[in-house]
Amino acid sequence: MQALRKVRPERGAAIEEIPVPAIGPHDVLVRVKAASICGTDLHIYGWDRWSASRVHPPMTFGHEFSGVVERVGDEVTRIKVGEKVSAEMHLNCGHCRQCRVGQPHVCQNLKIIGIDRDGCFAEFVTIPESNVWWLDKSIPEHYGAIMDPLGNAVHTVLSGPIAAQTVVVTGSGPIGLMAIAVAKACGSSTVFTTEVNAGRRSMALRMGADEAIDPSTTDAVARVRAATGGAGADVLLEMSGNPAAIKQGFQMLRAGGRASLLGIPSEPVTLDLLDSVIFKGATVLGIYGRRMFETWVQMTELLKSGKLNLDPLFGEPLPLSRYAEGFTMLEGGLAGKVIFAPNGVLR
Amino acid sequence: MQALRKVRPERGAAIEEIPVPAIGPHDVLVRVKAASICGTDLHIYGWDRWSASRVHPPMTFGHEFSGVVERVGDEVTRIKVGEKVSAEMHLNCGHCRQCRVGQPHVCQNLKIIGIDRDGCFAEFVTIPESNVWWLDKSIPEHYGAIMDPLGNAVHTVLSGPIAAQTVVVTGSGPIGLMAIAVAKACGSSTVFTTEVNAGRRSMALRMGADEAIDPSTTDAVARVRAATGGAGADVLLEMSGNPAAIKQGFQMLRAGGRASLLGIPSEPVTLDLLDSVIFKGATVLGIYGRRMFETWVQMTELLKSGKLNLDPLFGEPLPLSRYAEGFTMLEGGLAGKVIFAPNGVLR
Amino acid sequence: MQALRKVRPERGAAIEEIPVPAIGPHDVLVRVKAASICGTDLHIYGWDRWSASRVHPPMTFGHEFSGVVERVGDEVTRIKVGEKVSAEMHLNCGHCRQCRVGQPHVCQNLKIIGIDRDGCFAEFVTIPESNVWWLDKSIPEHYGAIMDPLGNAVHTVLSGPIAAQTVVVTGSGPIGLMAIAVAKACGSSTVFTTEVNAGRRSMALRMGADEAIDPSTTDAVARVRAATGGAGADVLLEMSGNPAAIKQGFQMLRAGGRASLLGIPSEPVTLDLLDSVIFKGATVLGIYGRRMFETWVQMTELLKSGKLNLDPLFGEPLPLSRYAEGFTMLEGGLAGKVIFAPNGVLR
Amino acid sequence: MQALRKVRPERGAAIEEIPVPAIGPHDVLVRVKAASICGTDLHIYGWDRWSASRVHPPMTFGHEFSGVVERVGDEVTRIKVGEKVSAEMHLNCGHCRQCRVGQPHVCQNLKIIGIDRDGCFAEFVTIPESNVWWLDKSIPEHYGAIMDPLGNAVHTVLSGPIAAQTVVVTGSGPIGLMAIAVAKACGSSTVFTTEVNAGRRSMALRMGADEAIDPSTTDAVARVRAATGGAGADVLLEMSGNPAAIKQGFQMLRAGGRASLLGIPSEPVTLDLLDSVIFKGATVLGIYGRRMFETWVQMTELLKSGKLNLDPLFGEPLPLSRYAEGFTMLEGGLAGKVIFAPNGVLR
Repeated sequence: MQALRKVRPERGAAIEEIPVPAIGPHDVLVRVKAASICGTDLHIYGWDRWSASRVHPPMTFGHEFSGVVERVGDEVTRIKVGEKVSAEMHLNCGHCRQCRVGQPHVCQNLKIIGIDRDGCFAEFVTIPESNVWWLDKSIPEHYGAIMDPLGNAVHTVLSGPIAAQTVVVTGSGPIGLMAIAVAKACGSSTVFTTEVNAGRRSMALRMGADEAIDPSTTDAVARVRAATGGAGADVLLEMSGNPAAIKQGFQMLRAGGRASLLGIPSEPVTLDLLDSVIFKGATVLGIYGRRMFETWVQMTELLKSGKLNLDPLFGEPLPLSRYAEGFTMLEGGLAGKVIFAPNGVLR
Repeated sequence: MQALRKVRPERGAAIEEIPVPAIGPHDVLVRVKAASICGTDLHIYGWDRWSASRVHPPMTFGHEFSGVVERVGDEVTRIKVGEKVSAEMHLNCGHCRQCRVGQPHVCQNLKIIGIDRDGCFAEFVTIPESNVWWLDKSIPEHYGAIMDPLGNAVHTVLSGPIAAQTVVVTGSGPIGLMAIAVAKACGSSTVFTTEVNAGRRSMALRMGADEAIDPSTTDAVARVRAATGGAGADVLLEMSGNPAAIKQGFQMLRAGGRASLLGIPSEPVTLDLLDSVIFKGATVLGIYGRRMFETWVQMTELLKSGKLNLDPLFGEPLPLSRYAEGFTMLEGGLAGKVIFAPNGVLR
Repeated sequence: MQALRKVRPERGAAIEEIPVPAIGPHDVLVRVKAASICGTDLHIYGWDRWSASRVHPPMTFGHEFSGVVERVGDEVTRIKVGEKVSAEMHLNCGHCRQCRVGQPHVCQNLKIIGIDRDGCFAEFVTIPESNVWWLDKSIPEHYGAIMDPLGNAVHTVLSGPIAAQTVVVTGSGPIGLMAIAVAKACGSSTVFTTEVNAGRRSMALRMGADEAIDPSTTDAVARVRAATGGAGADVLLEMSGNPAAIKQGFQMLRAGGRASLLGIPSEPVTLDLLDSVIFKGATVLGIYGRRMFETWVQMTELLKSGKLNLDPLFGEPLPLSRYAEGFTMLEGGLAGKVIFAPNGVLR
Repeated sequence: MQALRKVRPERGAAIEEIPVPAIGPHDVLVRVKAASICGTDLHIYGWDRWSASRVHPPMTFGHEFSGVVERVGDEVTRIKVGEKVSAEMHLNCGHCRQCRVGQPHVCQNLKIIGIDRDGCFAEFVTIPESNVWWLDKSIPEHYGAIMDPLGNAVHTVLSGPIAAQTVVVTGSGPIGLMAIAVAKACGSSTVFTTEVNAGRRSMALRMGADEAIDPSTTDAVARVRAATGGAGADVLLEMSGNPAAIKQGFQMLRAGGRASLLGIPSEPVTLDLLDSVIFKGATVLGIYGRRMFETWVQMTELLKSGKLNLDPLFGEPLPLSRYAEGFTMLEGGLAGKVIFAPNGVLR
């Protein structure tokens, strides 16, 4: 089969012909219909310090996908050939402290398919049955391909009260945009976003934001405070990873508010803990991955009931061979999700 | 001024001319623009056992209203003449155990304006400043008049997780109908309602219910189970007070689900606690009044952001003099809210 | 090996010689050092309606035990021969709604070892690796044998806030007694218990209760109200299953309080839902089993740190052959736990 | 009366003779029996940048006390002359967003008695009735004088689950020491503290800590990880305000754990948000003041039930005239609370 692989420890990737992966007794082999590029894939493609320390080429990468079950292992009991599926690519150990207390998403021994072993930028991928997720018939293949980042957004938004809350989303990259749509679908009142990229600001408005602020030209803190009667927003959803945006986000948060942090800072961040967190009595939540599998249930319900219109995020699917185009578009700061169709056109 | 009063300990009421109430130093006198009939007012009008034990005629009743501030007491500091307001009519003591631990809505020494002292079915009503609620400019007077029951609905819906949840609302009377709208606005997925009255079922669909089941002709438990993959609904919002509906509601609830009970049973209810609650690991929440004043903040945010269309609930406002008409319509089982305009036409 | 078995569908049981159970690739064979009789075992022994509908003789019963690993299946990776273990005997399916949202303890497809298949009243028992629990070295064998009911108690006590709370435990049977010890260890202030059996009342005091009330001679509701400034207790832990005690328990609960129900009523219960739950704004929690495996972590921490002295619960261990004696003692209403030692004396 | 006052904007204080304060209709005049020096008072005494920006001399400072009611205003209804009281010295506005949603402790318009107006280092202090707290008869005067910092400790410890949790307390100053006692009383399992001062480490052990680590000589992170099976502690209670201790505290926290931050850093803190919070899925809670008045209820219950032995914290009470001695002892890094007795000897 064809696979997009990290071949050498350097920038770039290559299409290679490799055998269809063998499956163990508990595994499911999935024919990949749609796969999507994650920000993490950009890091692996670009080969930054983190990738160099974690990824071991040669390896097929990619961890966002949907597809159809092609074959199942001998001990697989629930999943059947022909079913439409996606998957949670984080594999938890099941026995560490976190796994034992209902927090497998922060398992101490987490392995990630597409990072620690061969992923989904290929015609086929193999997944343990425990992590395969049935896609409801009503969910299209390209939506199925972004369950992983949509799960990040849903996990972030629903990590605290959201209905009737005023919300600031700092950063309107792909997950920030999804978070805007999720927050509005879940009853938040005014949703502000701060974003320097004009294209993303206009996309944010299409996703449902009430106001998209350019923090490079507007005093975003003053603006949000004024619009919230001086109090600040009830909820901060941090999606940028940018230290300046993080600081600003905390200044926009009201005392007693909730900040959920998903964006990945590339360096240590200096915070005025006293005024931003302690005196404020703030609740600050680190968000990683998706709750296994509560977030998947939530996504499925929201998508089935038609509450999330994510269409603005998608362009035309690309064949795997045009991978360079996909990575270039994303590296250029283009919002939205790039979809590969490793097995040909989507329906 | 004119007031609709319970004059004698018997069925009925009468319009009387009484003095405009005097105000104390901490009170606010409000000119009532719109007042609404609560189910409790029906009980007082009809003079049932509960009313006879609690209400002391002669007394002006009514506790749902909006209006404009006419005069304020000497020590009133925030509220100004001319402001548009509604009010929380439950007066808590501030020092009992519940008041001290953040649960003033179940205060041990609660007094209710319109039940324990003169209410709002009159040209003017007087309220302690602490309980007056500013109405946002965007909220129309008739919406302002139903903040009290809307608060019951919002309190019930938001007493647990609601986003991405499947929901059953047992009973589509006025508060059940509002709960449907609130649940959908706050991201619930499929919302079922069970209701024997055909008119209310069709209103439920207009308020956003996905399916309105007539439990007198359909096996509602089987229907909800089938539609939820056999599990049952995640959330039960009990709005009927009907013992049969309560039992059925618990049978429709999935194991691990949440039941919030607002409907008022008129007699003790026999429950199969073992299968309905204990083995199910259910969370059952008694709901009373509105959280003071968290629910008011939530309502305001939901209304301001345009998330709640409650128009189907309202007919033409009546002058106070046509009170008998209003009570008769409601006693006839008509869904919707009857609005009085004690000071003449609404804008 | 020797096993205590339900041989025929009628009252009683018998010791039989049967083969040591075979193990599958994911199973662990445990040599049972200490096993304990549960209330459920009394039902099976006595052969009531519930047992007749659920249990299929011939079968080895018993589901509370500790022991030492004798042999492990080919795919077992963590558990090693010679380790000291107990086990969660509820086997969840892993894929139903409840399993997917973090509530496997109320799985839709739950199977129970010792009820639905051969249990631990034998020299050996076989358990899937996923459900085996390492016992800390500091935990004695007889304590290890009661992790299942202790887990019920811990799950009940810790299902809501307990520190600095006033608590009523209705019923001081074995799990009620453990709940008293757990509540006191976790910072509850005054702990009341209601119990008609004088022996159990005195045991309740030894376990840490501040006051043991005989509801047949004392007005328990008046007593608890008086001792809590008229408010009622913050927390009700219902351990009796007795309809009268349940009603009384709710009357002793303050408005806004929490009631956790574990006791198993043998018939439907008539509750004044209005005054006991709805107007009270109560939180009522059905409690089943133990959280998997959060409760096991909690038990281990509490036992390791020496916070729970459960010694008063235990008498001398019996050999399996003296089973009739054990059942008779418990049927006689004796508080405390009866321990079998199927492989001879405990250390 | 005699009062210890900040007379001029410079280091120091002075005893002055001033009139007994007048009381308004809602106020209570209290004869101060015991008052205690807070860390904040040290700042005011030393006149640092914060004090210079907030405090307006001449002013009586001090905000931790207990006493006896001397006189009450005309509209005071509950509090009676002769009653034993303490008080919450944070005065909330009652109408800002936070006050309206149940978070008055982070009110936007908070005023503090003893900082923004005359406090309790005097023979008498005046307090609005709403903020006066009855002291249970069983609570001695010197315990009553430290309800404010004890409330900080209780608020911090009980801001999340604590029973059966492993805990690290970074910093064993007076509030850290109280937090240790509270955590152990509320069922936490192993409690570690990190503290460079040997005297405080030994006091920490007397207060119930299981292990007091000197982070200047021991690798505290390695030690806590090793003692928790590699996972890290479930809960971090940050009591030092020291940037290095804060960083270390987060490194000792397990993934999915809770960090409650009370210590006041004197400068912005650089945190590795990614590894310490985000990837960890940590819950970080800023803690300010005490919940009004839930924390006061909790303290009262814990003290009444004899769960907290705080005796090691206290030395001999000083007359107000020996104030310089008290401040010098505390500035010298002495752990424990210094108590003044402005009206003569304590019983």
